[in-house]
Amino acid sequence: MNNSFGRLFRLTTFGESHGPAVGAVIDGCPAGVPFDADLLARDLSRRRPGQAHTTERNEADHPEVMSGVFEGRTTGAPIAVLVRNSDQRSSDYEPLRDLFRPSHADFTYAAKYGVRDHRGGGRSSARETLARVAGGAVARMLLSALHPELNVVASVARMGPMIAREPAEGDTGDDVYNSPVRCVDGEAGAQMGAYVEELRARGDSTGGIVAVRVGGVPTGLGEPIYGKANARFAEAMLSINGAMGFEMGAGFEVAARRGSSNNDPFVNDAEGVLRTASNNSGGVQGGITNGMPLVFRVAFKPPSSIAREQRHGTASGETVVHAVAGRHDPSIVVRAVPVVEAMTLLVLADLALQRRAGGILQE
Amino acid sequence: MNNSFGRLFRLTTFGESHGPAVGAVIDGCPAGVPFDADLLARDLSRRRPGQAHTTERNEADHPEVMSGVFEGRTTGAPIAVLVRNSDQRSSDYEPLRDLFRPSHADFTYAAKYGVRDHRGGGRSSARETLARVAGGAVARMLLSALHPELNVVASVARMGPMIAREPAEGDTGDDVYNSPVRCVDGEAGAQMGAYVEELRARGDSTGGIVAVRVGGVPTGLGEPIYGKANARFAEAMLSINGAMGFEMGAGFEVAARRGSSNNDPFVNDAEGVLRTASNNSGGVQGGITNGMPLVFRVAFKPPSSIAREQRHGTASGETVVHAVAGRHDPSIVVRAVPVVEAMTLLVLADLALQRRAGGILQE
Amino acid sequence: MNNSFGRLFRLTTFGESHGPAVGAVIDGCPAGVPFDADLLARDLSRRRPGQAHTTERNEADHPEVMSGVFEGRTTGAPIAVLVRNSDQRSSDYEPLRDLFRPSHADFTYAAKYGVRDHRGGGRSSARETLARVAGGAVARMLLSALHPELNVVASVARMGPMIAREPAEGDTGDDVYNSPVRCVDGEAGAQMGAYVEELRARGDSTGGIVAVRVGGVPTGLGEPIYGKANARFAEAMLSINGAMGFEMGAGFEVAARRGSSNNDPFVNDAEGVLRTASNNSGGVQGGITNGMPLVFRVAFKPPSSIAREQRHGTASGETVVHAVAGRHDPSIVVRAVPVVEAMTLLVLADLALQRRAGGILQE
Amino acid sequence: MNNSFGRLFRLTTFGESHGPAVGAVIDGCPAGVPFDADLLARDLSRRRPGQAHTTERNEADHPEVMSGVFEGRTTGAPIAVLVRNSDQRSSDYEPLRDLFRPSHADFTYAAKYGVRDHRGGGRSSARETLARVAGGAVARMLLSALHPELNVVASVARMGPMIAREPAEGDTGDDVYNSPVRCVDGEAGAQMGAYVEELRARGDSTGGIVAVRVGGVPTGLGEPIYGKANARFAEAMLSINGAMGFEMGAGFEVAARRGSSNNDPFVNDAEGVLRTASNNSGGVQGGITNGMPLVFRVAFKPPSSIAREQRHGTASGETVVHAVAGRHDPSIVVRAVPVVEAMTLLVLADLALQRRAGGILQE
Repeated sequence: MNNSFGRLFRLTTFGESHGPAVGAVIDGCPAGVPFDADLLARDLSRRRPGQAHTTERNEADHPEVMSGVFEGRTTGAPIAVLVRNSDQRSSDYEPLRDLFRPSHADFTYAAKYGVRDHRGGGRSSARETLARVAGGAVARMLLSALHPELNVVASVARMGPMIAREPAEGDTGDDVYNSPVRCVDGEAGAQMGAYVEELRARGDSTGGIVAVRVGGVPTGLGEPIYGKANARFAEAMLSINGAMGFEMGAGFEVAARRGSSNNDPFVNDAEGVLRTASNNSGGVQGGITNGMPLVFRVAFKPPSSIAREQRHGTASGETVVHAVAGRHDPSIVVRAVPVVEAMTLLVLADLALQRRAGGILQE
Repeated sequence: MNNSFGRLFRLTTFGESHGPAVGAVIDGCPAGVPFDADLLARDLSRRRPGQAHTTERNEADHPEVMSGVFEGRTTGAPIAVLVRNSDQRSSDYEPLRDLFRPSHADFTYAAKYGVRDHRGGGRSSARETLARVAGGAVARMLLSALHPELNVVASVARMGPMIAREPAEGDTGDDVYNSPVRCVDGEAGAQMGAYVEELRARGDSTGGIVAVRVGGVPTGLGEPIYGKANARFAEAMLSINGAMGFEMGAGFEVAARRGSSNNDPFVNDAEGVLRTASNNSGGVQGGITNGMPLVFRVAFKPPSSIAREQRHGTASGETVVHAVAGRHDPSIVVRAVPVVEAMTLLVLADLALQRRAGGILQE
Repeated sequence: MNNSFGRLFRLTTFGESHGPAVGAVIDGCPAGVPFDADLLARDLSRRRPGQAHTTERNEADHPEVMSGVFEGRTTGAPIAVLVRNSDQRSSDYEPLRDLFRPSHADFTYAAKYGVRDHRGGGRSSARETLARVAGGAVARMLLSALHPELNVVASVARMGPMIAREPAEGDTGDDVYNSPVRCVDGEAGAQMGAYVEELRARGDSTGGIVAVRVGGVPTGLGEPIYGKANARFAEAMLSINGAMGFEMGAGFEVAARRGSSNNDPFVNDAEGVLRTASNNSGGVQGGITNGMPLVFRVAFKPPSSIAREQRHGTASGETVVHAVAGRHDPSIVVRAVPVVEAMTLLVLADLALQRRAGGILQE
Repeated sequence: MNNSFGRLFRLTTFGESHGPAVGAVIDGCPAGVPFDADLLARDLSRRRPGQAHTTERNEADHPEVMSGVFEGRTTGAPIAVLVRNSDQRSSDYEPLRDLFRPSHADFTYAAKYGVRDHRGGGRSSARETLARVAGGAVARMLLSALHPELNVVASVARMGPMIAREPAEGDTGDDVYNSPVRCVDGEAGAQMGAYVEELRARGDSTGGIVAVRVGGVPTGLGEPIYGKANARFAEAMLSINGAMGFEMGAGFEVAARRGSSNNDPFVNDAEGVLRTASNNSGGVQGGITNGMPLVFRVAFKPPSSIAREQRHGTASGETVVHAVAGRHDPSIVVRAVPVVEAMTLLVLADLALQRRAGGILQE
């Protein structure tokens, strides 16, 4: 259960890595939103493997829009997007039929469901994130109509020992996706690219951090007490494969701080509008956006699938040493960037609809 | 909207800090669970202010069970717990009527709802957490019946510069609550206690980290893709006032690691059961518990309410320098410990019921 | 589970007939709605027993508003209403401790929950409807602000052999509640009153029908496919104790009709607005309101509790002949009228918020 | 919004009549359920048009299972079923581009969404019910495993003036689907068949009633207060196109009855089990199944699409007289039978999972 995400703008996904297709159903999108098929294709292509520094599987990932769009606009009906799986070498995975790979979902899926779908991870495969990106693209279309000033930029901020600057005002999605490692910081990005290739050669992998900045955020998004904006982002991000941590604004650094230095004092900006001088809160106070940029970070573990020998478990309860064949990414973060972006968009679209429904009576 | 938490074991809360009462309605608890009124009272008393190192408000916090219990057992009907607010000095807050305190929810609530409930934070007050603790106590009763081996321990792991060891096997709730700063590490705890008093004297506050360990966890809890155990914990923790970050297992440290050292290799334990040698995953893989202890951390900011002068905003869009009177904690983490524990229990109860409903057919 | 009703405007209820209190928590009401405490008290008094033709229990039913209202307006926080149970003669029910009354919920609650709460029906008691009426009153306040032209009138349309005219344009709630049997048809109402007293004297009870008419309905309420207005009303009505049937517009009569006579042809009204000449659809087409009055009916069974001897079951699986003591209504419909009205208001408030969130982008 | 049905066993549907496909995503089905592809195909074929007495559109309706099944069993992942639309004569509908057909959803969809999808009803088309039948087939597979004794039979009980006996013990689905008009009563069914053809010739249509009987029902299904079994069935049935009424057990007849004759007295059956002598409650008391057969009826209006001239509305607010071309059923009930059956199965599967999750602790 629980294959739907969102409360009003609601994404349901289905499909396994080695089944016939992966799909997304987006329910709750208002009618009349201009539907931009090119944007959908672009967002999916930004996620696609077979690019520099990611796995070599080559999948067209052509999206087929099955419903909910008529004469170029959404109709209020659910929008279904289907993407066929075209490149499925299940035989690569045959040796895994009885093995549980370390730090993978093999063991826990088998424990929970009594089923071992050994073909590339089954439902737990990163291929499911394709449906998230499709949903995020529709969320982007809705947000463009509702809040055209919104600007979501996700960028790799850390990869192993390499640290890059985080996205700032003026950075765009193009800056990110022109970078093979999805990093707005050109210099650090070049080093990261080299590091990924080095790890690939050594059959190893690396962890990293994706940083997000959302500019142009309206005030009043987020539903206390149990739909706070920060809690919704945390949930969204930790639902991504390999995510190990989430922090908002100053994040874990606040543990070492005092209130007198961490509080965000109010100031009047050039236009005489009340805002905060600093943004340690990351744009959210009391679970509600305050109009400052949203700032958060997501930590990803190194991919578990590495070419080296490791200790696997077996269905019969024993352990064996085994090296997994197949094509694998040395880094999750590079491919996680568009997924982090999509989940951010999905949360924002949902919060925007919740504000339309609730919020102040007169709105 | 969104004042309910949980999908099957569902907590709804209501009440403001300076209204007549705060309440919790727990829906979805199966019938026949022994209801332990003493445990409820104990858990609420563990959260109560007026103890060492927390604010000096003194509230009896006597829980009144309004429904759902008959002859000592739950009946399957919703369980409502009401706690009257007995100590309300709203006049303390009168000077705040037109002020937005920095890093507080005043500004965002006013922006979202068009209402400025200046009396101690209104709905955004930490007093709401009382209802969470009541819900957590009922979750604890259910879990005691379903999974008696479960053992949740939350402990302050950091406070400003002071770092304590995290909870380990053998630590108990009594160890935590016998410590005035809610820390299983006696030596570090003593230093933290002194630090809190020093900050109180200086009119300042400190951030910190609460670490959680859950032992005796069954496998198979967590519902991929959008109800993963780690995502549910992240959402739950970030919904707590002042939480700025969440990490599971090795957390943000993984950003610097390689897969070859971060993966958790399988081993056979003394009883011949398959488990992992390390626990960098924090007990969750693919969103599902693997039977290892759950390990996560929550970062809390320093309380925003400090005695010093700060720059406040006003409803008319100006800024003023003001020092807030009133009684305030120098640290959130001390009082957050039972709330973190309660939210952990609520998530676990919910996941346990989801596993009963779904999971394997034969269960 | 499932003690909440509604998707955006959401009512959660708790409490048993012989526990300390019954309560309602309304979540999702936008901020800024004028809160009319007198209207709440009036609606509750309209439901109260101890009036002509209903049971003789006398309960003050004084509502205590615990949260969500500040300076006369809703704040966006959940609104909790508590009503103490003041008149509890549990001893009346002591002989029932081991008996299952025929056509009552005793047997099924015991089968489902393993608990026999014999005190007046426990959670299944009609006293729970008090919380619905409280929720309905808040829904009425919201709807008054959003759609001031809305006018919900429910009236007893049948009682045993007596048939009354259904509510029509111009009928008001006052007309209904000035009638002891809650009937807009004065003559039929007088006969019904006499019939109720006759049945009371004979220790018997009667079934009946409540008819509802909602005028001033905006178009566009209802969310196909699984949130259609008619389906939501059906669900709402069948959730009321004793409801056995629901029909919309021409209802069951359509089974005998042909399309050529049942279709509602379009006409232009005096203002040149497109509407339908007839209203066999009852104001809903394709699950969405069309601007015509909403028309539906709910059938209620005769109350199961009668003074005569009947065959009861026992917990040990036997049957006994027994006459139940206690005070009971000879008719559900009289007291059901305000409950039907409340459920109608709750559905309408929910649909109105859903339309705000979804619907057309430009709204 | 609201294109999902069910709380734990959850169906999401998408697709329009003249788009590329219609689809169903079933989430919440436990793992390990034997997946019977033949049963799925059979249930879809039972619904398919192009059979005797239904419209002449001929669609293969071949279901493609996209996910959630591996080696013949469900995996716990969502099960998606896609059915392509192969026979789409959109041009038939071109004259309708600016017309609102009477008693159709054209007008209300346009009012709600600002869109006029004239191609055969768009989302409001009965073709959506194909996805329900697919979901119902999966529900049937789950129920076969959980409660093999369950037996759902739906049958046409009335069509215009013709009345048939309702399904009784011993009737099977084969009896129903061997009848061209889906009626267990052979004689009445033959008359109905003739009546349908007579109406077709005259360009008219008829209303009717579908009656349902579910045998082998376990006790304890249904979640009071807002998830009662009867309310769930009512909601499910009224969500079907053309449904105008729902009644359970004795239904609307109870309005004329007295309690002394309507109550279902307890008796001990041959095996010494407590049951009720009559079944006026239709198998549900207090919202929970009591082990007796579930009995309910659904009234359907005559199809609005008839060949005769009728008064249509236009988008510019005028009315015109127009006769609609195209192929249309003279009766909804014949094709509604498998849909009613599917919705019944979906509710039962959902209630069965809710009982697994909640209910008594020891289960």
